[in-house]
Amino acid sequence: MKILVINGVNMNMLGIREPEKYGHLTLKELEKNLYSYSFELGFDIETFQSNFEGEIVEKIHSAYGNADGIVINPGAYTHTSVAIRDAISGVGIPTVEIHITNIYAREGFRQNSLIAPVCVAQISGFGAESYKLGLKGLADFLRSGKNSDDEEL
Amino acid sequence: MKILVINGVNMNMLGIREPEKYGHLTLKELEKNLYSYSFELGFDIETFQSNFEGEIVEKIHSAYGNADGIVINPGAYTHTSVAIRDAISGVGIPTVEIHITNIYAREGFRQNSLIAPVCVAQISGFGAESYKLGLKGLADFLRSGKNSDDEEL
Amino acid sequence: MKILVINGVNMNMLGIREPEKYGHLTLKELEKNLYSYSFELGFDIETFQSNFEGEIVEKIHSAYGNADGIVINPGAYTHTSVAIRDAISGVGIPTVEIHITNIYAREGFRQNSLIAPVCVAQISGFGAESYKLGLKGLADFLRSGKNSDDEEL
Amino acid sequence: MKILVINGVNMNMLGIREPEKYGHLTLKELEKNLYSYSFELGFDIETFQSNFEGEIVEKIHSAYGNADGIVINPGAYTHTSVAIRDAISGVGIPTVEIHITNIYAREGFRQNSLIAPVCVAQISGFGAESYKLGLKGLADFLRSGKNSDDEEL
Amino acid sequence: MKILVINGVNMNMLGIREPEKYGHLTLKELEKNLYSYSFELGFDIETFQSNFEGEIVEKIHSAYGNADGIVINPGAYTHTSVAIRDAISGVGIPTVEIHITNIYAREGFRQNSLIAPVCVAQISGFGAESYKLGLKGLADFLRSGKNSDDEEL
Amino acid sequence: MKILVINGVNMNMLGIREPEKYGHLTLKELEKNLYSYSFELGFDIETFQSNFEGEIVEKIHSAYGNADGIVINPGAYTHTSVAIRDAISGVGIPTVEIHITNIYAREGFRQNSLIAPVCVAQISGFGAESYKLGLKGLADFLRSGKNSDDEEL
Amino acid sequence: MKILVINGVNMNMLGIREPEKYGHLTLKELEKNLYSYSFELGFDIETFQSNFEGEIVEKIHSAYGNADGIVINPGAYTHTSVAIRDAISGVGIPTVEIHITNIYAREGFRQNSLIAPVCVAQISGFGAESYKLGLKGLADFLRSGKNSDDEEL
Amino acid sequence: MKILVINGVNMNMLGIREPEKYGHLTLKELEKNLYSYSFELGFDIETFQSNFEGEIVEKIHSAYGNADGIVINPGAYTHTSVAIRDAISGVGIPTVEIHITNIYAREGFRQNSLIAPVCVAQISGFGAESYKLGLKGLADFLRSGKNSDDEEL
Amino acid sequence: MKILVINGVNMNMLGIREPEKYGHLTLKELEKNLYSYSFELGFDIETFQSNFEGEIVEKIHSAYGNADGIVINPGAYTHTSVAIRDAISGVGIPTVEIHITNIYAREGFRQNSLIAPVCVAQISGFGAESYKLGLKGLADFLRSGKNSDDEEL
Amino acid sequence: MKILVINGVNMNMLGIREPEKYGHLTLKELEKNLYSYSFELGFDIETFQSNFEGEIVEKIHSAYGNADGIVINPGAYTHTSVAIRDAISGVGIPTVEIHITNIYAREGFRQNSLIAPVCVAQISGFGAESYKLGLKGLADFLRSGKNSDDEEL
Amino acid sequence: MKILVINGVNMNMLGIREPEKYGHLTLKELEKNLYSYSFELGFDIETFQSNFEGEIVEKIHSAYGNADGIVINPGAYTHTSVAIRDAISGVGIPTVEIHITNIYAREGFRQNSLIAPVCVAQISGFGAESYKLGLKGLADFLRSGKNSDDEEL
Amino acid sequence: MKILVINGVNMNMLGIREPEKYGHLTLKELEKNLYSYSFELGFDIETFQSNFEGEIVEKIHSAYGNADGIVINPGAYTHTSVAIRDAISGVGIPTVEIHITNIYAREGFRQNSLIAPVCVAQISGFGAESYKLGLKGLADFLRSGKNSDDEEL
Repeated sequence: MKILVINGVNMNMLGIREPEKYGHLTLKELEKNLYSYSFELGFDIETFQSNFEGEIVEKIHSAYGNADGIVINPGAYTHTSVAIRDAISGVGIPTVEIHITNIYAREGFRQNSLIAPVCVAQISGFGAESYKLGLKGLADFLRSGKNSDDEEL
Repeated sequence: MKILVINGVNMNMLGIREPEKYGHLTLKELEKNLYSYSFELGFDIETFQSNFEGEIVEKIHSAYGNADGIVINPGAYTHTSVAIRDAISGVGIPTVEIHITNIYAREGFRQNSLIAPVCVAQISGFGAESYKLGLKGLADFLRSGKNSDDEEL
Repeated sequence: MKILVINGVNMNMLGIREPEKYGHLTLKELEKNLYSYSFELGFDIETFQSNFEGEIVEKIHSAYGNADGIVINPGAYTHTSVAIRDAISGVGIPTVEIHITNIYAREGFRQNSLIAPVCVAQISGFGAESYKLGLKGLADFLRSGKNSDDEEL
Repeated sequence: MKILVINGVNMNMLGIREPEKYGHLTLKELEKNLYSYSFELGFDIETFQSNFEGEIVEKIHSAYGNADGIVINPGAYTHTSVAIRDAISGVGIPTVEIHITNIYAREGFRQNSLIAPVCVAQISGFGAESYKLGLKGLADFLRSGKNSDDEEL
Repeated sequence: MKILVINGVNMNMLGIREPEKYGHLTLKELEKNLYSYSFELGFDIETFQSNFEGEIVEKIHSAYGNADGIVINPGAYTHTSVAIRDAISGVGIPTVEIHITNIYAREGFRQNSLIAPVCVAQISGFGAESYKLGLKGLADFLRSGKNSDDEEL
Repeated sequence: MKILVINGVNMNMLGIREPEKYGHLTLKELEKNLYSYSFELGFDIETFQSNFEGEIVEKIHSAYGNADGIVINPGAYTHTSVAIRDAISGVGIPTVEIHITNIYAREGFRQNSLIAPVCVAQISGFGAESYKLGLKGLADFLRSGKNSDDEEL
Repeated sequence: MKILVINGVNMNMLGIREPEKYGHLTLKELEKNLYSYSFELGFDIETFQSNFEGEIVEKIHSAYGNADGIVINPGAYTHTSVAIRDAISGVGIPTVEIHITNIYAREGFRQNSLIAPVCVAQISGFGAESYKLGLKGLADFLRSGKNSDDEEL
Repeated sequence: MKILVINGVNMNMLGIREPEKYGHLTLKELEKNLYSYSFELGFDIETFQSNFEGEIVEKIHSAYGNADGIVINPGAYTHTSVAIRDAISGVGIPTVEIHITNIYAREGFRQNSLIAPVCVAQISGFGAESYKLGLKGLADFLRSGKNSDDEEL
Repeated sequence: MKILVINGVNMNMLGIREPEKYGHLTLKELEKNLYSYSFELGFDIETFQSNFEGEIVEKIHSAYGNADGIVINPGAYTHTSVAIRDAISGVGIPTVEIHITNIYAREGFRQNSLIAPVCVAQISGFGAESYKLGLKGLADFLRSGKNSDDEEL
Repeated sequence: MKILVINGVNMNMLGIREPEKYGHLTLKELEKNLYSYSFELGFDIETFQSNFEGEIVEKIHSAYGNADGIVINPGAYTHTSVAIRDAISGVGIPTVEIHITNIYAREGFRQNSLIAPVCVAQISGFGAESYKLGLKGLADFLRSGKNSDDEEL
Repeated sequence: MKILVINGVNMNMLGIREPEKYGHLTLKELEKNLYSYSFELGFDIETFQSNFEGEIVEKIHSAYGNADGIVINPGAYTHTSVAIRDAISGVGIPTVEIHITNIYAREGFRQNSLIAPVCVAQISGFGAESYKLGLKGLADFLRSGKNSDDEEL
Repeated sequence: MKILVINGVNMNMLGIREPEKYGHLTLKELEKNLYSYSFELGFDIETFQSNFEGEIVEKIHSAYGNADGIVINPGAYTHTSVAIRDAISGVGIPTVEIHITNIYAREGFRQNSLIAPVCVAQISGFGAESYKLGLKGLADFLRSGKNSDDEEL
């Protein structure tokens, strides 16, 4: 089982600026943690970050046939990208959207996700832990043998 | 460390009707699982279910000084209860909102939570696993020594 | 065949205040009339009134497996209760929503029913007659052998 | 006592297309049933169908002084015709609006009736039974001696 | 100079119902008064009433090349007919919209005219006098030699 | 009979700027014309212009007991002044709102009048003729013996 | 003269949590103060608090015939309860809505009261003093001999 | 294969007024061109124009069992007629909506089509060519053997 | 301690027109009453009325350093004046907004106050008593030693 | 004559996923078909696909002086890209927007095109045929000698 | 070349209150600085401040024929005054709107300027520097010989 | 002191197309002018243009620690890019948003900037001068010793 972990726009600045909001962990450190974590839980991950909507779309395309699941923190594209939404629903790979902060406690425009409706689940607000919870939840979902195509919603 | 697990309105019907949407697990079975799970993770839980907004409010009041955290699935009150929101922000206990289904893939009015803005975090869509992820995430949050009062957001 | 007749919030004041709007019949008299009426039409009814959203939800739960249909006048909860809506769609019992006054000729916020979309039908404006028409319509619907689960809409 | 039964636009196709939504009964058969039904209940009806907003308006005008009540299923004009609304409120004849399907369980734009605010009552969702319930309810209303002019609402 | 006076839907009921709102004058009497009035003022009128949107559209078409101006009281079509709007702007004949009542003191939906933006001017609220003022204003406008095509607005 | 003619903000620039929109007539010339016109029609007028909302309000107050009617072109205050609206409804003097241009063919925010709902009638789009039509219409209204207090709408 | 003082949801936590927002006075102390205050002013009060919408509704019902006025701080139900609104307008007892904080300086959704339109008056922002001002104002209103039924607005 | 070509309201004025917007071709000439064009492409057409919503509805009814497809330019009814929408979805005949001008480059209210959601496809902006492209597209669609009933959308 | 009492637009007409809405007391009498009342309560007041937004703004400016508190009934400026709001928040003097009528029981546009968010408190609906209650509440607030600058909300 | 055919985001997945919605043709095959088709019709095309908004913008820039027309299927960028809209209106090359599916029969947010208002025309819903119809329509438009700069709309 | 510098409502309090928001410079000092600055840049200015909407309107009128440009900081009237907007567009003098604070980082209602659409340009957020930048920008604009009447936008 | 000057999407076409809207200066010429201008004013600039949202985001990231300020004309991304907004607020470098045209005099959707709320200031409408004014204003701001972190707003 392989899960693709996608970090979207501005996520490369993690741990560099605004640590009071997003924590002191850099993206590199976070990704390293996630590799260990997934190794312990018994599955592979591949990490990817891009500030380009188009690159994220193409990474999702490339996952088609190559990954069993996707954990994505789209950053600001959460609120503006129909393109990423269509890529996810197009490849049909079970996807979990995660956010470091609780987006429902922020500005109004951040409380609407264009991505969530095509995802299996959404997690927001646990800081860097959100990634781990997302990976764990997705792995359990995939192992439970549910095929995303016969999901109800 | 003690966490209060609150199930809101209609949650007593879990596993009885609409299993294709909410799964076959009954509330009793779910709660039993959560007791085992929290025991493994090394903290206590107390479970509670009510169909009355007033009872949920009062349960939250009673947690003041008695619980370190709250995991709540408010059911339909998610979208209509300012009272529960005020109870949570009033007692100031770190709270995680969880949902069995992905509320962002359902009717428009279900995509607005009155509760989430006063919570630490929100999880939706992992089925019964949402409770476990919520408990784990909240326990890690509480153990990390962060005091909800100096939280940024 | 058994039909549960639920009266929601403030309905216990029927006939006591504002008779020019709701008529002079008290709730007790109305319920008595409905028992006679259903006896004539050859089915049983059980009547129930509560001012508590939670009690109405639980009464609907209790109808699961015990009643063939529900006639409900939710009163003000018509416009605010997602909980009652979920209870009705949860138990899957064919339900008819009725109102004494024509809610479409009143204040704007009364013209939106959260309950109607999960009901078989809605009647409003015939005064106390609305209950009889609702019972008759629901009984005919149930006798026609249609299973609410293969209903189109 | 005479009641005018008006069927609006597309109602002539009843029973011909989309029987899964509107039933197999043709308009002719339905009207025949209503004649029998009203005969049993002891009053006269006159039936009318038109796909023209203008013809419906003029039929309502012609009822002035000639009919005691109107049962109307305006079809799609429910949502778009201020003209029919004005005709009804202009002639001042007690009117009941009925719908075969539950319009509150359909597309958003069908959940707003321009006609209902000037009617005595509204029924929707009982299939062809809606007509009978509407006739019965209106007849009872007229017999109860209430004059539409001293109605509260 | 010839002006076409169009009365729209429900205007044939003028003076018959709701005299407290629209006055006791019948449409026939009103039209007779307008013929006298226009004779005094030195121009011809032709009067027309229809309850059919399509007939009003065609009457406006027929005015192309045959009338110098139009005074129209569209009745309820004021608020719903893009078709009449397009007919007026299509034929390019200077048009004045008039209303018997002050539509800005009535229900919200009556305060929006689809017709007014393609008219030269609008008058509402003078009772039957609105027609005379509209005729007088339009005649003065036409005599002032302004061509509707080089109008600013 | 005496009618007060109030011109609101920017109206002192009439005939000076933007003649293509408002005509070449200066306010002084316009007022002179209106004096002649009202003299012919047999009643008195008093003219007044101010760019101050407060002065317009006080002029309306001063009309209480001193004028039988008001013709007002509030200019831009049409769309922003609740104060003038309240002054008019407070003194209870029959008032006609007039506009030189057709406000319904201009920007969206100009199509909403805060003043019109408390007026007897509204005229817009006849250029300087709007004043004459407004005076004539109001004088006829006042002479017809209707008391603004028993007006229906 | 007897006035019923109702405190709504979460008000039992007064003085316990968030004293910087709601003050250090507990509900018990507040109620004691109000008893003294009303004694001085020469009328009786009865105090009541509930976190249940249904109980508040029933308390209002019970006031019918037993109390001359109501002072209510509905807490969060201010913004969500049509049921309490209907109970108040149903029993027809003059009611004053009060708030400890200035709700117009808080989140947008708190600036809309469903209760205020059926009250005589509203006070918000004076802290615990709001109750005293509300009692005093209501007592004066009741003593002035005005019957709520002939109130204009 | 037979296709019905329906032209809606004001289309009879084609080529007569506003040629700069709609071209110099009259409706008669356009229809003649379409007959030739469809003859070349090997299918029959029937042309129809009406300014009456009711007549268009009935023409669509009459196509039931008699035509394989419909090309419709509803004119202004595009934006206001739920009746025509229901007629099209009622008869279940594959329909293409076409417009001469690009409606998305015009007034806001013209950018919403009530008809398009029940059509196979929509074309707007090619002038008179829109009809030919619509016919060609629809003919290809029909020949491709797709049954409108198993369409995805 | 000195409190400035400001009456806004149209308030000079108090007691002269619409006594059924605003009472029979003239502004002069009301102000006299308030002087006595504040004398009894042991503080000074200065009264001021203007129909000019600019004068009210300048009066508030002049209070800077000269008054301890402001009681203001802005009249219609409540709903339209950002200028008065900015003046109040600019001078930073604790202010109470009062209204004679219950503005929440009037037209929709009157239910939004631009002023309230920068005030300490708001009172509406007690008739002339609103002023007294506002003075009393503000005096108590000022005497309680709270500095408006460290007020929470 | 040369036409640039641009496919936007996710269009490279054509024929690979969701064939029930977008058909089995791959983008390569589609483009091949379009080359043949345009060869038959006597003009050149150049095809281009990108998932990057910026690349699409630059391709449109590069067309300036090099292409006579553009056919574009922007995919999800239809609903979010003001940048592409500005590029098209900036280069001033006649453009046709096309869609494979009928976007007006899909989710609400897909029914708004930011691109269409700056295009000559729009086609949606004919599957892969939409491209051919778009090419044909645009070629005819270009050959008709109309210069996009003197277009009306 | 002469430029009129207008400061609107509350601007006389500059430097007196809320220096943390608006700086410590008084209006007098600011105006003195602007005189020096414009002297250096080689043009004249005239400064003006008023808290009266009407006075600002009249000052703009008086600029007609007497000033080449206007720099205006309308204060709160930015968001509420159609009157000032009309005065500016009426006199046709090139105008620059400036703000001390960045209005786009403040409350929602401050982010809408009624004045900006009729100005040449807008500057906000540079503190007192905004005036200098506005003067410099406007002077350059005027010297570049562009006539505001042939400006595109 | 170093300021980064970023030009966003479509800005490379400056001077090439639509000179009547954006002027005849090419981007290269403009940038050359800005180098001279900043040299005169005594600070360095670096210029950058990209049509890619991702590249602009990364350029802003790269400025972290390397530039003292940013002047940005985001082009169309002004209205759609939360990503650029987050990049600016993330790096915490004082930023000025500028526009060549007055965006408040253009289409509605151009009047909303997602970027402005995180900027120090905004300038729009001075043509190419906007850049110079932005640079000058920003340089003065930076030199005034204010640290963006202790800015009020």
